[in-house]
Amino acid sequence: MEKTKKQEQSRREFLKNSAIISTGVALTSSPINILAKEENKMNYVETKGYAAFDESGEIKPYTFKRRPVGDNDILIEIKAASICHSDIHQEKGHWGKQQYPQVPGHEIAGIVTAIGKDVTKFKVGDRAGVGCMVDGCTTCEEEQYESNTLFTYGYPDDREPTRITQGGYSKEIVVRDHFAVHLPDGVSFEKAAPLLCAGITTYSPLIKADIKKGDKVGVAGIGGLGHMAVKIAVSKGAEVYAFTTSADKVEDIKGFGAKEVIVVDDELKSLQEYTGQLDYMISTIPYQFNVAAYANVVKPYGYFTMVGMPVGFELTLSNIGLAFNRVNFNASLIGGMKETQEMVDYCVANDVLPEIQMIKASEITQAWKNVEDKKARYRYVIDTATI
Amino acid sequence: MEKTKKQEQSRREFLKNSAIISTGVALTSSPINILAKEENKMNYVETKGYAAFDESGEIKPYTFKRRPVGDNDILIEIKAASICHSDIHQEKGHWGKQQYPQVPGHEIAGIVTAIGKDVTKFKVGDRAGVGCMVDGCTTCEEEQYESNTLFTYGYPDDREPTRITQGGYSKEIVVRDHFAVHLPDGVSFEKAAPLLCAGITTYSPLIKADIKKGDKVGVAGIGGLGHMAVKIAVSKGAEVYAFTTSADKVEDIKGFGAKEVIVVDDELKSLQEYTGQLDYMISTIPYQFNVAAYANVVKPYGYFTMVGMPVGFELTLSNIGLAFNRVNFNASLIGGMKETQEMVDYCVANDVLPEIQMIKASEITQAWKNVEDKKARYRYVIDTATI
Repeated sequence: MEKTKKQEQSRREFLKNSAIISTGVALTSSPINILAKEENKMNYVETKGYAAFDESGEIKPYTFKRRPVGDNDILIEIKAASICHSDIHQEKGHWGKQQYPQVPGHEIAGIVTAIGKDVTKFKVGDRAGVGCMVDGCTTCEEEQYESNTLFTYGYPDDREPTRITQGGYSKEIVVRDHFAVHLPDGVSFEKAAPLLCAGITTYSPLIKADIKKGDKVGVAGIGGLGHMAVKIAVSKGAEVYAFTTSADKVEDIKGFGAKEVIVVDDELKSLQEYTGQLDYMISTIPYQFNVAAYANVVKPYGYFTMVGMPVGFELTLSNIGLAFNRVNFNASLIGGMKETQEMVDYCVANDVLPEIQMIKASEITQAWKNVEDKKARYRYVIDTATI
Repeated sequence: MEKTKKQEQSRREFLKNSAIISTGVALTSSPINILAKEENKMNYVETKGYAAFDESGEIKPYTFKRRPVGDNDILIEIKAASICHSDIHQEKGHWGKQQYPQVPGHEIAGIVTAIGKDVTKFKVGDRAGVGCMVDGCTTCEEEQYESNTLFTYGYPDDREPTRITQGGYSKEIVVRDHFAVHLPDGVSFEKAAPLLCAGITTYSPLIKADIKKGDKVGVAGIGGLGHMAVKIAVSKGAEVYAFTTSADKVEDIKGFGAKEVIVVDDELKSLQEYTGQLDYMISTIPYQFNVAAYANVVKPYGYFTMVGMPVGFELTLSNIGLAFNRVNFNASLIGGMKETQEMVDYCVANDVLPEIQMIKASEITQAWKNVEDKKARYRYVIDTATI
């Protein structure tokens, strides 16, 4: 899809200011009484979910309407939705002000229950997964970087009665067919859901880095994303060095196939032993950290990819540290849809699946606290039957 | 040269804390009366220079002694020394506390006036240049990244009577032969001096980036380093896009051969027109800036090299911005000695030489202010006859 400079500019402006949603403006142009009449005429999808109502981190039940199923859309009955640290960052306003109520969730697995008249990719009854995108360019290789991408929750969408996209902590979701993937037989909904963000976010850069058998690959931050990075790199034959601040995760991580697990101390001294030894490193740490100290473990002229998104999306790094270690720093955001399907197929075929803990919807607020306290082992999955 | 982990660690600690010099400790182990007796016995080189005495940015005359010429050292009578923004950063304490008096200057050109008994690289009367290093590993390809490198000024060196290295704003300097380069015929001392930092710092990453004829190369920040980057890239056949905040530099920069000169506004809107268009970009900006907005002008999966060293050596960048532009960010520090000789030979042979303004030593303080005010055009060179 061709994008104009203006679109790109407006997209970047939007990202820069994060999701400062102009609710007031939207309602002014569609006064509530008109909106109500319009709603009666249209086939809005009434559903239930769990939403943030403010920046407190408390998640409560919310009944709301979604946009009608368009000609190219599918309606999915959500069976499992998992919790990503990004949900917490966004709803707490760490990435900018939000419009509430807002239903988070971008790791979604379920069954197709309706399709638009032009949909050929899915039929009713298919098992489908949805990640961080619900509409946008359908012809690009890397949809996630296009200017017109609609992310799964909190993004302006005038077709939605709430005027923003609403995510996966919910019973149903309407998405453009292109932005759903097929879930192969042999994977449960609850094991599939985390693949849609944690899986693709780590798979994409690992594949781009062309990880080969015997390569020494570092993974920093072993949570939902990190434990998938370890498993994916191990499955590609890499020697994986996992760096965690949680000593009680060591045995688990060895169980995932890591060659070495390094417990990183506050002064980062445990990193020094590995200076210049790894071919590549991926960091999933979702907060500010000493990038150069971690990147030091990579060989000169190697690559270090950041997939965690810190508060304010900002990282402060030592420029002279990066000069000395000569490491190329880059960042990566999820993956394209073709790559996401490839990842799901690969992970299911190779039994590269997440460690999960099932929770009820009423436990989401506590689960978020656990994620922040590094207590998740390793992905909380919401049983949507409890919504 | 093999470096131990401990050395590397201590080196990195030192850099992390910048140049917090333990004068007290040095003097404790060598009380002043003993030091005085030692000095009488040794062939210290008494010389004159201009030094910083505190963080004020005022540079004043200073008479001091340098270490004797060792078996592998050469003594250089300095004919020209030029002013780098790094001199200002370091002496003002922007990179950590300093020991004073400290003579700055790491762009040095002069004549060899004495050699140690094991020196074969130079003979008395040779023209020589010295950059940012004066001793260290003599067998590595990239001496600047080794743990035992002695940088030209402000670094602990117990052989020096002042206990730190003292730089090029001076009449003479003693350096290990390996860390001086030959200055070819056909270049004046004053045109050669800026090559030793501004030249190599930009040449090294441009060569590593394998700039070829027709490549679109961006240069951000057109001062002492940036104007050399433009000239070097132009000489390699690149189409150069120069980004400056100084509208009155436009004609000059076109004169250096840039294809386009973009005057960057405070809101960085002028960058947007170039989104995703360049093959490579180098930034010489010596302060904090919006890295992701500049890196946006590079094609996805291209490279952006930072050679400017900001206050505190720290850069804060937008991680999500770097995800969207998919650009590899790296940093680079000067170049190795073999590469520095290659650069000097290349620049002289191809007439890729700096624009300079000669000043007297008494004008250094004002020249520093001009550099900070972006008034330098483009490198101030001190006539050392005025010291």
